[in-house]
Amino acid sequence: MDHYMQAAIDEARNGLAEGGIPIGSVLVHQGEIIGRGHNRRVQAGSTVLHGEMDALENAGRLPASVYRNCTLYTTLSPCPMCSGAILLYGIPRVVIGENRTFLGEEELLRSRGVAVEVLQLEECIELMTHFIEASPELWNEDIGE
Amino acid sequence: MDHYMQAAIDEARNGLAEGGIPIGSVLVHQGEIIGRGHNRRVQAGSTVLHGEMDALENAGRLPASVYRNCTLYTTLSPCPMCSGAILLYGIPRVVIGENRTFLGEEELLRSRGVAVEVLQLEECIELMTHFIEASPELWNEDIGE
Repeated sequence: MDHYMQAAIDEARNGLAEGGIPIGSVLVHQGEIIGRGHNRRVQAGSTVLHGEMDALENAGRLPASVYRNCTLYTTLSPCPMCSGAILLYGIPRVVIGENRTFLGEEELLRSRGVAVEVLQLEECIELMTHFIEASPELWNEDIGE
Repeated sequence: MDHYMQAAIDEARNGLAEGGIPIGSVLVHQGEIIGRGHNRRVQAGSTVLHGEMDALENAGRLPASVYRNCTLYTTLSPCPMCSGAILLYGIPRVVIGENRTFLGEEELLRSRGVAVEVLQLEECIELMTHFIEASPELWNEDIGE
């Protein structure tokens, strides 16, 4: 397992242990994890802190030059909001755990020049499949459906 | 002046008075303001709480059926992140104070069926023009440039 994706999965599992939605993310700059996060809808009543957004928030304020050399790892295909954040900050590469349970804006990202890699990991698919089966209403709320 | 846009401008001015970036937003549901917010990069060290995101966050967790009947008012053309949040939650209408100082993802929103209205208000243009002249580095950081 990729070290950085493992850190994103660890974040997702932390979220699940807190009673939250199991999606995690890490922001990596030149080999170093500079932001970690997980979905905080349940824990913080947040509508904006998806896993990727929480990782970006926890990385803190950064100049554009740092984002331009970052890779964002996320356990699930990024939704329109998180994809928009990737475009805003000009993050050039995104590595995704899986896109079977939810397909985000991968095509939009690619069309704007972002390198998108999908690992399609069984561990990520199982994490989301079990969560969606157990909490369909919470999941629908998180994706605006 | 439109009552709701005035509330968004008031939020922008609140942000400026706090030493922040003067962009404000309100979320309106069936005639009632259910969320107010302004950019909180300086005040909270936040990279995700743009004005629109702060309004969505302050509105709290809502079912999709509420977002589907909302209009988002924002003093400035929404960036990719905020536009993505509008798409995620299926907000069908966005009213924008101005897009002269920054043009966001209005075309993407329209291409996905969002009704986008630009008021091009002198008050909003002046607010941003003065801010950008006074704090160009802070502004560039906020838009990832």
